[in-house]
Amino acid sequence: MTIKLAIAGARGRMGGTAIVAGTEATDMEIVAVLDYKHDGEYLHNGAITDTKEGIPIYTSLAALHAAHHPNVLLDVTDPDAVFANASEALSLGMNVVVGTSGLTAEMLTDLENLSNEQQKSCIIAPNFSIGAVLMMKFAQQAARYLGDVEILEMHHDRKLDAPSGTAVKTAEMIREVRAAHIQGHPEEQETLKGARGADIEGMKIHSIRLPGLLAHQEVLLGGEGELLKIRHDSFDRKSFMPGILLAVRESVSTPRFIYGLEKIID
Amino acid sequence: MTIKLAIAGARGRMGGTAIVAGTEATDMEIVAVLDYKHDGEYLHNGAITDTKEGIPIYTSLAALHAAHHPNVLLDVTDPDAVFANASEALSLGMNVVVGTSGLTAEMLTDLENLSNEQQKSCIIAPNFSIGAVLMMKFAQQAARYLGDVEILEMHHDRKLDAPSGTAVKTAEMIREVRAAHIQGHPEEQETLKGARGADIEGMKIHSIRLPGLLAHQEVLLGGEGELLKIRHDSFDRKSFMPGILLAVRESVSTPRFIYGLEKIID
Amino acid sequence: MTIKLAIAGARGRMGGTAIVAGTEATDMEIVAVLDYKHDGEYLHNGAITDTKEGIPIYTSLAALHAAHHPNVLLDVTDPDAVFANASEALSLGMNVVVGTSGLTAEMLTDLENLSNEQQKSCIIAPNFSIGAVLMMKFAQQAARYLGDVEILEMHHDRKLDAPSGTAVKTAEMIREVRAAHIQGHPEEQETLKGARGADIEGMKIHSIRLPGLLAHQEVLLGGEGELLKIRHDSFDRKSFMPGILLAVRESVSTPRFIYGLEKIID
Amino acid sequence: MTIKLAIAGARGRMGGTAIVAGTEATDMEIVAVLDYKHDGEYLHNGAITDTKEGIPIYTSLAALHAAHHPNVLLDVTDPDAVFANASEALSLGMNVVVGTSGLTAEMLTDLENLSNEQQKSCIIAPNFSIGAVLMMKFAQQAARYLGDVEILEMHHDRKLDAPSGTAVKTAEMIREVRAAHIQGHPEEQETLKGARGADIEGMKIHSIRLPGLLAHQEVLLGGEGELLKIRHDSFDRKSFMPGILLAVRESVSTPRFIYGLEKIID
Repeated sequence: MTIKLAIAGARGRMGGTAIVAGTEATDMEIVAVLDYKHDGEYLHNGAITDTKEGIPIYTSLAALHAAHHPNVLLDVTDPDAVFANASEALSLGMNVVVGTSGLTAEMLTDLENLSNEQQKSCIIAPNFSIGAVLMMKFAQQAARYLGDVEILEMHHDRKLDAPSGTAVKTAEMIREVRAAHIQGHPEEQETLKGARGADIEGMKIHSIRLPGLLAHQEVLLGGEGELLKIRHDSFDRKSFMPGILLAVRESVSTPRFIYGLEKIID
Repeated sequence: MTIKLAIAGARGRMGGTAIVAGTEATDMEIVAVLDYKHDGEYLHNGAITDTKEGIPIYTSLAALHAAHHPNVLLDVTDPDAVFANASEALSLGMNVVVGTSGLTAEMLTDLENLSNEQQKSCIIAPNFSIGAVLMMKFAQQAARYLGDVEILEMHHDRKLDAPSGTAVKTAEMIREVRAAHIQGHPEEQETLKGARGADIEGMKIHSIRLPGLLAHQEVLLGGEGELLKIRHDSFDRKSFMPGILLAVRESVSTPRFIYGLEKIID
Repeated sequence: MTIKLAIAGARGRMGGTAIVAGTEATDMEIVAVLDYKHDGEYLHNGAITDTKEGIPIYTSLAALHAAHHPNVLLDVTDPDAVFANASEALSLGMNVVVGTSGLTAEMLTDLENLSNEQQKSCIIAPNFSIGAVLMMKFAQQAARYLGDVEILEMHHDRKLDAPSGTAVKTAEMIREVRAAHIQGHPEEQETLKGARGADIEGMKIHSIRLPGLLAHQEVLLGGEGELLKIRHDSFDRKSFMPGILLAVRESVSTPRFIYGLEKIID
Repeated sequence: MTIKLAIAGARGRMGGTAIVAGTEATDMEIVAVLDYKHDGEYLHNGAITDTKEGIPIYTSLAALHAAHHPNVLLDVTDPDAVFANASEALSLGMNVVVGTSGLTAEMLTDLENLSNEQQKSCIIAPNFSIGAVLMMKFAQQAARYLGDVEILEMHHDRKLDAPSGTAVKTAEMIREVRAAHIQGHPEEQETLKGARGADIEGMKIHSIRLPGLLAHQEVLLGGEGELLKIRHDSFDRKSFMPGILLAVRESVSTPRFIYGLEKIID
């Protein structure tokens, strides 16, 4: 079976990656894109055209659905647009794959209910990088045996917030399996404030920001006489492609609501 | 319940670690040690003494068993002695934990049969380091998604063989889940022989030997635009303690034959 | 003084980087570019145009010189074109900066002689990355104290040759200060061929090739009880800019022939 | 010439390392040790004996000097004893090598004056690790080209202070060559306090503490599109030997006062 795929947010940077991934996948066909303008035009090699080549653009999801009956809507727009798109898609009987971390708890509950009612999948992935998800899963697994953990995340110096969302997510996943405890010497002293980093239940997080860096994270887990280090480097947005395809395929296999790519990676 | 533990090979370096681990564990008691000499003497703080302090030494496992009825024999002797010790212990109704990689396939089959007949555990762990086992397991899991793999193992320059047993074991575990394929550019050229390392089904292994190094391994898994690195450092034999204790506890829970600590780590 | 700069190879990828670097530098002005076609047209934001905006293109260096009298020709074309361009530029009285490793020993001698006769600079830099040059210099300095060295170079899997030019260059620089000797155990055995890597006078070089990787090198220097590691990561061609500017500025300060950016970095 | 060496603090851990280093060096002879007790006894294989084997022990430096006329006193006692020992040794006409960071500015001035008056060397090395000193020197050299710096120091979790003395020393050496400036995004926000580490003139220092770790430091220097990392691992006190020998040899070559091993490593 060829999966008929519609993409919302196709003109953005993540959308461009999704277009390439969907086009290269032999088991998928991108039948249409949803946009807030350019209705009736076409998206061809990243540019808008009014000649009939490329992928047709719709501003109405209902119209898009009526014309192409896609199996899946992949939404890589911003958090503001995602909820309305995803809700409408589920109501229309499409499976939905969403790539954003910006939805509120209430929105997530609504989407989960709608997914169950409609018996359609709704897969929400704040991070499409399989490598990053593996890093987090492995860190969580290892922390059951090596319970002293420090997280180092390294990004370019244009990043505004510290620590990164992935670092906090990693710590939260580890927290589920690790008893909270103070790490380091109980009488440890910081002679320079901040040296020991941020603290989440005793786990330390250190944020490095340098020009040149892209997006990197190391999780260090220590035990008597040994150290386990799990590191992930993101060099290029292309690394999201396998995760996008995995989620799309998963959405058409069994209808269900899933939050987090880690739930479909074992 | 306190686990009554007997140790064979207690005067060796791994044995010394095992003595400390067993002594520090609140749920275990080391009741006796098996040796090839010093029958009737005592092992006290690593030294042999004939005063009645420390742990009694036996040269006969049957006599040891009759006097102390241990639940588990932990054998950290050399491969030559292990098979006889383990067979006799199982026959006498003890559970057995073995820390060696030197047994033949035939010996393993014999021990498995004896373990089943006697309804006693036989747990054989070539590597008691939980951190190293986690590294291998994670590398295997990750290779299903990131199938291009290179292994770097780093040891002190007194090591005779290259690559290390752990590196080969890692490649073999990955081989179970990864389709064999040539890595690198198909027309790749080595202008200096050996630059691309050793090859196992396309996976590359590189052995670094330097004074100063202890025992370290990195598994690099690459995908488009990303890299996952899993590294383990062994700094001290103390890192084997948790694995020894885990195996001893596991041996008294459910009688079974197990090869590899990875089978009891999830 | 503003340095008047002409660039050959401006439409290539390195040339594009050079254009940006020269444009952003407040002490330089790019007065013209040399090409093999498009004479009389203009290079404007990376595109060719016939309107009088951007940088004028010449196919004759003599004509370019007569019209603009640049202080420096920066040549980032291919090795085939470099020698003729550089010779002519020196003869015309320009300083020359060349970014290629492809010149023969004979060509280098000719350029050195011409540079001396004309009392103009000829600076040839096989690698414009200051970070990479620092890595090589530091490795060389450290090897006088820590004489056991292994080099790991890591590149994407589209690279054809192994080991990399930078790795070989590093080993050659270290060779100048390190007595040749066998590293590792004298009776070391490779149970899998190639595990110990390529050999240059006892130093080992290991080439890692994985999708996802960009260009990375680590030099490991071991001594009793310690390890020094010097690593350089090239994430983007932008890293060449400071080296290009440094060479251009150096070329106008004192007339001389220089091979290798390391000669002007202290 | 054989250098006649006396050692103060020979029964401590650093002293034991010094004894081995001095004994193995073919150009040195350890003629006596200075202690606060055991006068007239001998130090033999690390134990005190009253039989005439091993190295004679003195509690008076004057008596030691009269009997053996050593060229150099190596003092690896604690800061309390060092100043008196070093002063007396210089007054007696010996060269002095001191391994401690605990002397006050006043004491250093006094020793420098005495060294000049007596025309004898006084070499004070807070850190005998050549590898660590090279790391600091290289970081300093590189910071002139790559001025954005973060320092990560990693130690076992029994360490009381953070950051380490070596990390602060590294930052201070870099400060000599780097213009103070804020690193990271000017509007950077810490959503968890401490994430961005300690600050020295904009340079960030991060202290990692985990069981298993020994003593490690990484200096990261970033530039557009590239990263340079210099890492030193201390695995064993044996790494101090070459630095001790270097300082002893240097002390007998030219009489002078030197603070810091980096002054005699080029």
